[in-house]
Amino acid sequence: MTDILSLLAERLPPSALREVEPRYLEEPRGRWMGQGAALVLPATTAEVAETIKACAETGTPVIPYGGGTGLVGGQLSESGPAPVILSLERMRAVREMDAQAGTMTVEAGAILADIHAAAEAEGWIFPLTLASQGSARIGGLLATNAGGVNVIRYGNARDLCLGIEAVLPDGTVMNTLSPLRKNNTGYDLRHLLIGAEGTLGVITAATLRLFPKPEATGAALMVVPHAEAALGLLRMAQARIGEGVSAFEIISRTGLDFLNEVGPEVKQPFDTPPDWMCLVDLGLSGGARPEEALEELFAEAFEAGLVTDGVIAQSEAQRQEFWALRENIPLANRRIGAVASHDISVPVARIPDFIAEAPGKLAEIGEYRTNCFGHLGDGNLHYNVFPMPGRTRADHETERGAIKRAVHDLVHAMGGSVSAEHGIGRFKVDDLERYGDPGKLAAMRAIKAALDPRGIMNPGAVLKS
Amino acid sequence: MTDILSLLAERLPPSALREVEPRYLEEPRGRWMGQGAALVLPATTAEVAETIKACAETGTPVIPYGGGTGLVGGQLSESGPAPVILSLERMRAVREMDAQAGTMTVEAGAILADIHAAAEAEGWIFPLTLASQGSARIGGLLATNAGGVNVIRYGNARDLCLGIEAVLPDGTVMNTLSPLRKNNTGYDLRHLLIGAEGTLGVITAATLRLFPKPEATGAALMVVPHAEAALGLLRMAQARIGEGVSAFEIISRTGLDFLNEVGPEVKQPFDTPPDWMCLVDLGLSGGARPEEALEELFAEAFEAGLVTDGVIAQSEAQRQEFWALRENIPLANRRIGAVASHDISVPVARIPDFIAEAPGKLAEIGEYRTNCFGHLGDGNLHYNVFPMPGRTRADHETERGAIKRAVHDLVHAMGGSVSAEHGIGRFKVDDLERYGDPGKLAAMRAIKAALDPRGIMNPGAVLKS
Repeated sequence: MTDILSLLAERLPPSALREVEPRYLEEPRGRWMGQGAALVLPATTAEVAETIKACAETGTPVIPYGGGTGLVGGQLSESGPAPVILSLERMRAVREMDAQAGTMTVEAGAILADIHAAAEAEGWIFPLTLASQGSARIGGLLATNAGGVNVIRYGNARDLCLGIEAVLPDGTVMNTLSPLRKNNTGYDLRHLLIGAEGTLGVITAATLRLFPKPEATGAALMVVPHAEAALGLLRMAQARIGEGVSAFEIISRTGLDFLNEVGPEVKQPFDTPPDWMCLVDLGLSGGARPEEALEELFAEAFEAGLVTDGVIAQSEAQRQEFWALRENIPLANRRIGAVASHDISVPVARIPDFIAEAPGKLAEIGEYRTNCFGHLGDGNLHYNVFPMPGRTRADHETERGAIKRAVHDLVHAMGGSVSAEHGIGRFKVDDLERYGDPGKLAAMRAIKAALDPRGIMNPGAVLKS
Repeated sequence: MTDILSLLAERLPPSALREVEPRYLEEPRGRWMGQGAALVLPATTAEVAETIKACAETGTPVIPYGGGTGLVGGQLSESGPAPVILSLERMRAVREMDAQAGTMTVEAGAILADIHAAAEAEGWIFPLTLASQGSARIGGLLATNAGGVNVIRYGNARDLCLGIEAVLPDGTVMNTLSPLRKNNTGYDLRHLLIGAEGTLGVITAATLRLFPKPEATGAALMVVPHAEAALGLLRMAQARIGEGVSAFEIISRTGLDFLNEVGPEVKQPFDTPPDWMCLVDLGLSGGARPEEALEELFAEAFEAGLVTDGVIAQSEAQRQEFWALRENIPLANRRIGAVASHDISVPVARIPDFIAEAPGKLAEIGEYRTNCFGHLGDGNLHYNVFPMPGRTRADHETERGAIKRAVHDLVHAMGGSVSAEHGIGRFKVDDLERYGDPGKLAAMRAIKAALDPRGIMNPGAVLKS
């Protein structure tokens, strides 16, 4: 590794090369610890290219590093040769903003919340929205094709990106930055790098699609008697309000209990936490009034037996309270400490079946509490399994594998995905091998070998290295 | 080639193997003539796989064939060894329809108009809409990432596809068919094959996204004084009506003159053909009235000097008349016979500049009439160059190269694309080499070599073989 360090020192300005700090080696749940030979903080695409070239010449692994918020270990390497950690954090400029057409080109290190602010300053929104938006960076969000709460309306990260600039594994810069909506000139390598989790190159910049800001927003929490009713409410909301439904989340009683048990302290809207409730978020234009639309939806759903109680936000502050409830559930989860977490999707119509059948599969293994919540509108649930009160994660170490297998087998049997929005990273490589289409896996390996013959780009992520 | 024919005869049922009929060797404008060693008409994905395997074993080129409507020669091979023509026309079943979720899985040979009908029978729409929808097949539409008139609202073909089944160049079947909206399990090979024009494999089936049918539709023809005003009208329409704008087409006087000159006979809405007019098409729900929305748009635009005259369809029949006018322009163009045709896009804001500057570039070469029309809302223009009255296409044979170069150089200088929606095929391979990003081209070649080492899949299309 001395070779690579001296090469980097020779080719990069001193500001771009640092000792690895511990925070680059930790992951959000604190479960694994990575390793790093050097930390590179390039200021330009050319410096990224120099870094990758040096790594390619010496066969040194590189881990592209965004905000470090990934939940599947894509940003840290536990074993094998210590990698160069390539953090894009200094590259966060807005290179271009077209406020007429609604596009912006940003560098990969831009933090999502800053992109939100830059878009809103010009009267637009960039609709990718997720809990970690204060630290997640757009390069990582694209590399993992992040999802979040607004996919139902605006799509995943890949759907919000018109073009990318990237450094390929041999150090070549590929520039497909473009605001064009129609451009059929060759293979769409943008979509190949998006979601490849840094294994085929490093995204250094992206042209993003902005959307008109809805004139009025609104939200409601609606109590549903069971998951089937939640699905009925979703269909009814979409039939009545169409693309105005910006988010449709489901929250289970376990999540509300956890918040009561360990915090963070948030205002609970109902005296008794209901078994299931939905957070329905609207963004409307053209003079339409979200409160009215939600009232009418509630009335019709109540009539149909789909909802039993509800509260409609009377102010933006109250809407934010509803969202705080939703967004704090993952924090409460971490305080409790899950035995196993699952980021899964099934065809939307199968969600009630999944929720009905999964507990039986778990009961064959042991006794647990499950917190099931997430993006019902996209068929994406976070299905997290916790110890019973008085017990801890550590008590169940030996059961984790069986739990994951049981949940993932059920998801797979229902035509679902064992990684809906978090990606494969390192934690799910075996799952991909087990559940992935063999034809697709073979083609993935061939592409990886062709673009990265020395296997330097984030080795061990997505595919076995 | 005897080898491949006997192999195919051995492995396929007799119904799947035929002599090549001339229609498989012709292209819509009648400019080129292809060649074919055999015509294979598989009935199943397994038969497609057998065909590709036989071709891989013998190094025989294969041309996947859809509806034969492509305009860039992707479906015919003029030179080199005669290929097997693999037509998907017998595989046109709807495999699955989820009328609750709004997805359908269809085989690649399904004709677009049949897909429209199948979706509408279940209360949905499949919004991909283009002039050749009566013969274009979904496999080809995806392989070329077709565009059409509704991209402004619903996106390109790739945006309407959730997953594909494909046979890869070694005969492996890759199955990523899925109705899931969130699925981050490995590289997105769906998007790699979509738009690869059959050079990386054959798409055999696809899961498509359906959309709610707008409750009410409406259309207007609005006369604008110049292209800048058309752009202003587009912005105004989008600000007022948002995603309700389903299409926004621009039509030039030349197109209307051509219709008068050579037909097809269509009802012209204005006594004197205006220099420029826009076709604004709306699809609204929630009780909104398109006629009213168009009247208000017209009034505001008239006030602002953006439109000078207009007619709003008073019935669906009249709306269809407006569309017939637009859709018959390409037919009139063919009757006149273009010297050169260009399917280009530029950043939407640059369209007036392009329209202002292109005639000067052409005047340096010769005297022509240009018919500029197309999908203004997406920045996609068809910029076709014709002989003056009394002259013919043949009189300008030697100028074609210079014309194409002049138009494409201008487009490229404006950050545009020399193939917006038609693809590269064989006619634009040199353009891709000239204007494509070198880093992207190198990666494309590496991927092509990795997946198709013998170069059998549609050789000569997209990349030089």
